[in-house]
Amino acid sequence: MSDFKPLLALTMGDPAGVGAEVIVKTLAEEEVYRNCRPLVVGDAGWMAESLGFVPIPLKVNRVQHVQDGAYRYGTIDVLHVDNPGVEEVEYGRLSAVAGRAAVSYIFKGIDMALQGEAHAVVTGPINKEAMHMAGYRYPGHTEIFAEKTVTRDYAMMLAVDDVYVLHVSTHCSLREACDRATKERVGAVIRLAQEVIDTYRLPKRTIAVAGLNPHAGEGGAFGREEIEGIIPAVQEAQSLGMDVVGPLPPDSVFVRAQRGQFNVVVVMYHDQGHIPVKILNFEEGVNVTVGLPIIRTSVDHGTAFDKAGKGTADPASMRAAVYLGARMARAKYGR
Amino acid sequence: MSDFKPLLALTMGDPAGVGAEVIVKTLAEEEVYRNCRPLVVGDAGWMAESLGFVPIPLKVNRVQHVQDGAYRYGTIDVLHVDNPGVEEVEYGRLSAVAGRAAVSYIFKGIDMALQGEAHAVVTGPINKEAMHMAGYRYPGHTEIFAEKTVTRDYAMMLAVDDVYVLHVSTHCSLREACDRATKERVGAVIRLAQEVIDTYRLPKRTIAVAGLNPHAGEGGAFGREEIEGIIPAVQEAQSLGMDVVGPLPPDSVFVRAQRGQFNVVVVMYHDQGHIPVKILNFEEGVNVTVGLPIIRTSVDHGTAFDKAGKGTADPASMRAAVYLGARMARAKYGR
Repeated sequence: MSDFKPLLALTMGDPAGVGAEVIVKTLAEEEVYRNCRPLVVGDAGWMAESLGFVPIPLKVNRVQHVQDGAYRYGTIDVLHVDNPGVEEVEYGRLSAVAGRAAVSYIFKGIDMALQGEAHAVVTGPINKEAMHMAGYRYPGHTEIFAEKTVTRDYAMMLAVDDVYVLHVSTHCSLREACDRATKERVGAVIRLAQEVIDTYRLPKRTIAVAGLNPHAGEGGAFGREEIEGIIPAVQEAQSLGMDVVGPLPPDSVFVRAQRGQFNVVVVMYHDQGHIPVKILNFEEGVNVTVGLPIIRTSVDHGTAFDKAGKGTADPASMRAAVYLGARMARAKYGR
Repeated sequence: MSDFKPLLALTMGDPAGVGAEVIVKTLAEEEVYRNCRPLVVGDAGWMAESLGFVPIPLKVNRVQHVQDGAYRYGTIDVLHVDNPGVEEVEYGRLSAVAGRAAVSYIFKGIDMALQGEAHAVVTGPINKEAMHMAGYRYPGHTEIFAEKTVTRDYAMMLAVDDVYVLHVSTHCSLREACDRATKERVGAVIRLAQEVIDTYRLPKRTIAVAGLNPHAGEGGAFGREEIEGIIPAVQEAQSLGMDVVGPLPPDSVFVRAQRGQFNVVVVMYHDQGHIPVKILNFEEGVNVTVGLPIIRTSVDHGTAFDKAGKGTADPASMRAAVYLGARMARAKYGR
């Protein structure tokens, strides 16, 4: 590992959820500070409140500027973003104030990354309904990042162990996912996969592309999306010199990835990627948005309002998101 | 385990494939004979030829009738079905003769089960193209069983460890799978799941039903099949007293099954079941046809013409199919 320690902006998420708790639990591990300089972007009061969730003494260092952080184990640096009324938010309770606060942390984190102050943004969980109550129309985190960074082609990537899974479509019906498996979109996601391999210097450079239909369509017998969209996209990428295989039968591509044949898999729809990733490692899945000019990793779970404030939240996904963000930042910005 | 040893008819499959080899390798394990009385339905010559694939001395006992079998470890009982020209079949070569022979073994196995001579049929791999060359129009094994047993409602079930996965649809396009997730078909498969739980005395009696769309449709935001087909089917089953939950998010239902919450999962399409099952245990997956009046388990792989005759075929799936067939037969017919 190089000496370069990337600066990670950890956005706190909705104060009524488990975001602050999983961040504190993650930063209670000394190892994290050997990998990166974490800076929480959120509310200093809520972070101080959350110190009680860990059995070791930590303190909060409220900072105004990135350069004021201590970045030392034992001190949690918090870049405080002021949101009037946030101190009255209650655990597990939907509110416009909490929704607005959550978005303000994200805006700040994105700004920091765009200005080169942070090498990656790691996002804590937000609540969509609270965000909508606050007047933001975004369907989710990802769209905020796309809009603020003016990105057209992006994709959701799930990372688990050494397998990176890029999705051609995500939050739409299965019928619409069939419509979206076009040559253009599949081609765009294959190019994003190539960018991931190049930027993050992955050892296995082959991109595996899953089919949409059972047996990858079996020559047209079980659907024509492979023939009309996926195969032309694969061939075009190959003609541009990319190492792409597929469309492969969806039920064997992950077994091959699991055995180490591929680092990167392109899947056609939400569950084609989410089912195998959650089985392979439910707790430590990390959600990454690829195609952005900045690095963004995220916890793979929601605000868990039912668990908030109880101290029982599992920080495994946040920890994995921090380590992956740090690893990606070292590969991209390190010498 | 009760003393009852069910009689299993093992159909040899296409002689040009790995069927005889994986059967011989399975019957080379003494443990099998403590669980069942295996009777190969196939060609005595090809079975004798295949003895060379195992390092221990076994012999073939060619029988005419079920009652002539020795059913003792060391002797492979073969109910020989005559097929002129089958001795000239070559490994790895498509032929009408081999296709016809493979079907003749299946017909015989089904007859034996229907007449109560066998308690289960365990099928070796067949080659669809060879079968079509022989003039049979069946799309696969399953349809032969359905036709010969006059069964209307049946489903493909994959069994892995203690999870049984029933498919609402299998070999069709993903778009057609969306069309097939109707109240009627989902309801029929839920009833088949209940039959499996009852007949095979599974410990966990809850039937988990997966949604079709991501997040099980999220209240209609990502598709309406849950609202129009799956939920009404689940509610009807519940009103009949069945313990059914769902539709559950497809990417968490298998994690819950893996943790032991469910023995039986109903899935909507081929890969929704096949992706997780193959990740959980690629080698030992077993394919079962449920809804038939007889028990049928099968290897989960094809004829593997590229490997045939080389002695390198892995018998894990055949072994698992034999053990599962024996277990199901004991539960159904044992005291």
